[in-house]
Amino acid sequence: MSDGCVFCKIVSGDLPCARIYDSEQILSFLDIGPITPGHCLIVPKVHADRLELCDAAVLSELGKTIGLISKAVVRVTTCSGYNVLCNNGPDAGQIVPHVHFHIIPRESGDGLFNPWPAGSYDKGEIEKMAERIQQAIC
Amino acid sequence: MSDGCVFCKIVSGDLPCARIYDSEQILSFLDIGPITPGHCLIVPKVHADRLELCDAAVLSELGKTIGLISKAVVRVTTCSGYNVLCNNGPDAGQIVPHVHFHIIPRESGDGLFNPWPAGSYDKGEIEKMAERIQQAIC
Repeated sequence: MSDGCVFCKIVSGDLPCARIYDSEQILSFLDIGPITPGHCLIVPKVHADRLELCDAAVLSELGKTIGLISKAVVRVTTCSGYNVLCNNGPDAGQIVPHVHFHIIPRESGDGLFNPWPAGSYDKGEIEKMAERIQQAIC
Repeated sequence: MSDGCVFCKIVSGDLPCARIYDSEQILSFLDIGPITPGHCLIVPKVHADRLELCDAAVLSELGKTIGLISKAVVRVTTCSGYNVLCNNGPDAGQIVPHVHFHIIPRESGDGLFNPWPAGSYDKGEIEKMAERIQQAIC
C-alpha cells in the first residue's frame, strides 16, 4: 500500500467504490467521472505507479480480467465498441499514480478520441527503432 | 487465420513488419503510421476481431507482453510516459479488425489525446450500473 494513494484506499476499503469484480490480485469498479456510462476501472491490488513496474503474475491477471469485464460491459451497455486504455505518467494523462486500465464503452458518432495523428518514419528508421526496442527487451 | 486480415498476413509472414517480439502466441511490431516514434503494436497470433473474444490464455500472454514491451519502450525512447490502448469496434476507432494493443510513447506537452471528457452519474445510478455489470460477468 502506498501512503495517500486513492486506489490503495479503495482496495483496502478505506474509501468506497461501485465494485464490479474482486479477486485475489485485481479489483474492478466504476469510474466516478465516467466518459460514458459503464466506464470501468481495473486495478491491481498491489500498488505500482506504472504498468512496466508490475510483475508478470499481476500482468497476466490484468489481461484476463480486462477480457472478462469487457465481455460483461458489452452485454450490459448499448455500446457498439469500447476502448481499453492505460495511461502511464502525467504526460500520458495519468491522474491517479496507481496502475489502472479504463474500459470505455463507445457508441457510433459519440465524437470521443477522434483525432488519430498518425505519422511516418523516414526510410530505414523503422527498422532501426525495432532493433533498439527488440534489444531492450529483458 | 482470417481471410484478408492484414495482421494475420503479418503473423504468417505473407506481409513484412518491423518485428520487436515473437512468442508462441503473440507478435509485436512497430506501427507503420506511428503517432510518436517507437509506437508499438502487440497482436495475438490467433485471429480474434475484438478483445472480449480472446480466450484466457491469450489474454494472460497479452498482459505479460504489454508489460515487457512497455519496459523496453521506456528504456529506448525519450518518453516520459506512454498510453496502452486497444480499440474495439469501428465506433471505438478500430481500423484493423484483429485485436491489437498500441503502446504510444508520450512526451511533455505533445498535445495528444488531451480532452478527457469526464461525466457523472445521477444519484443512485452508479450503484445500479455496477450491479448490472457485476451480474453479467461469467
